[in-house]
Amino acid sequence: MELVIVGSVAYDDLVTDVGEAEGALGGSATYAGLSAAFHSRLRDPNMGGPVPVGLVGVVGDDFRVGDWEMLESRGLDLSGIERAEGSTFRWRGRYHGSMDEAETLETQLNVFGEFEPKIPAGWTSPEVLFCGNIHPAIQAAVLDSCSGAKFTALDSMNLWIMTEPTALSDVMRRVDMAILNDQEVRLIADDANLIRAAESIRSGDALVEPEGWDPADGHPGNGPDYLVVKKGENGVIAFTPQGMVALPAMPTSRVVDPTGCGDTFAGALLSMVAASGNVRPGIEEIREAIINAVVTASFTLGEFGTAGIMNLDRADYAARRDSYRRIAGV
Amino acid sequence: MELVIVGSVAYDDLVTDVGEAEGALGGSATYAGLSAAFHSRLRDPNMGGPVPVGLVGVVGDDFRVGDWEMLESRGLDLSGIERAEGSTFRWRGRYHGSMDEAETLETQLNVFGEFEPKIPAGWTSPEVLFCGNIHPAIQAAVLDSCSGAKFTALDSMNLWIMTEPTALSDVMRRVDMAILNDQEVRLIADDANLIRAAESIRSGDALVEPEGWDPADGHPGNGPDYLVVKKGENGVIAFTPQGMVALPAMPTSRVVDPTGCGDTFAGALLSMVAASGNVRPGIEEIREAIINAVVTASFTLGEFGTAGIMNLDRADYAARRDSYRRIAGV
Repeated sequence: MELVIVGSVAYDDLVTDVGEAEGALGGSATYAGLSAAFHSRLRDPNMGGPVPVGLVGVVGDDFRVGDWEMLESRGLDLSGIERAEGSTFRWRGRYHGSMDEAETLETQLNVFGEFEPKIPAGWTSPEVLFCGNIHPAIQAAVLDSCSGAKFTALDSMNLWIMTEPTALSDVMRRVDMAILNDQEVRLIADDANLIRAAESIRSGDALVEPEGWDPADGHPGNGPDYLVVKKGENGVIAFTPQGMVALPAMPTSRVVDPTGCGDTFAGALLSMVAASGNVRPGIEEIREAIINAVVTASFTLGEFGTAGIMNLDRADYAARRDSYRRIAGV
Repeated sequence: MELVIVGSVAYDDLVTDVGEAEGALGGSATYAGLSAAFHSRLRDPNMGGPVPVGLVGVVGDDFRVGDWEMLESRGLDLSGIERAEGSTFRWRGRYHGSMDEAETLETQLNVFGEFEPKIPAGWTSPEVLFCGNIHPAIQAAVLDSCSGAKFTALDSMNLWIMTEPTALSDVMRRVDMAILNDQEVRLIADDANLIRAAESIRSGDALVEPEGWDPADGHPGNGPDYLVVKKGENGVIAFTPQGMVALPAMPTSRVVDPTGCGDTFAGALLSMVAASGNVRPGIEEIREAIINAVVTASFTLGEFGTAGIMNLDRADYAARRDSYRRIAGV
């Protein structure tokens, strides 16, 4: 498997200024998977069959067969998706105003509450492993299971930063790349200056010491070599071993639903890293991957749920990417 | 005169997380003038004499002779600066946290309260006229006085947007370019989406109708053709007749004092427009001007008051601009 994505598969009830959607297919693995599958197909226009992207997650017995078939029809390998007794993870959220922050109205973990990712045999050495936003201890278990992964990345959220700082710090020291938003970066480092905050995460200074760590053992280890900071409508700044990359967002007057934009972004970015086969991507590779990730995420933003990424047309994508290149001058 | 800048000359008392400064030379005309003078000299490295940049403003009898001489030594023409009886405009402000917004502690308008800009003879047809942030009715009077200006630009602030929407709208319809920050753009258009807000200002839809306007007279007129939106640490987005330009900020871990960054930005941008002699700058000209404006403003940000821009070294500037180009990929 080229890219293994571990995360949630969910049904979302969404309210935004533009309208609402009930029981929309969502979840981090879903968005990242659809985005990565699109980029796999984009690189290989003749391919209509499977893409080298596998999802690991869990769904309940209420999961709609149509959704399963849609994901399979995009070429995704779902053999890592467990079907458990009970209901699929459900999230109810609302967005206001500039829609840059979600307000969670209700979270029903359901089958996701007992989720123990089982990595299928043959998936333990992917080019890239992406641990979507789940409990950092589970992310650590996934890293253990996929010990042959050549490049590893994770996402997280405020909840884990506040409640599990030690477990999150441990896993941050193990991955090659963290993909976080600006508020998360500031929160981890407790520094309002984003550049300083990001650098102190990469150096490890902002991370919490491991349990039982003895200062005599020396520095407990650096954070991730690559830190990609998503800033929503304000673009992206990435910190890499070769220096920083800063890019604007795709200017968008049609903001329908921001749900899944971050995962769409991560799926596109990591799909490109996986395809390159470079376990130490250079600054220009990262820039190209981010350009594609920003443009892909803008399609998710423009429709409810997965509608924008699910049926993304190649020509529409190419046109918007051209437009982005003109605007950003890249 | 190539570039005429109308605005405030002030003494500022500043408190930031890094330290404080009392009675620091400031004001919109000062920052924009020093920035424009630097770029004039950068284009003509052999020139040590006057630069084609004139300031229009007012100072009190407490204005320090050393400050006057410093401004003259940068080649600025001060014959538009009136010396009035009383104290120079004084602003006391404070910044916190990410320092993206100033908290005004005290404003003493002093001689600036009665400011009536007097444009020197010979300055009424500059390549570019910049009306810094002053009452929009005074900006209108300046536009009347400089009726030969080939390209006109203005800045404004929340105060005028809220208290003088009609006067501000009138003057917005008259200038070629508005240079505003994102909050101001959202406030004028009453729209949280920045892209929609900016487009509705340019089209004139977000502007207030002129006093006594009769709908039978048709559309009261478009807003500025060029709208440059400053987003602080989140970069810049510019709307031009040839399309949008989006650029990130210069990533900066050393934020000392944001005072004057916007005026430094405007001075550099308009200096480049003035030097081009193009009254209808194209998208790539605007991009180049913004790149230089962003980099110049980052020097103001890195020191208290005008210290960062006053003694800006050519080599330091070139090095940081190179670094910016690498980071932004432009």
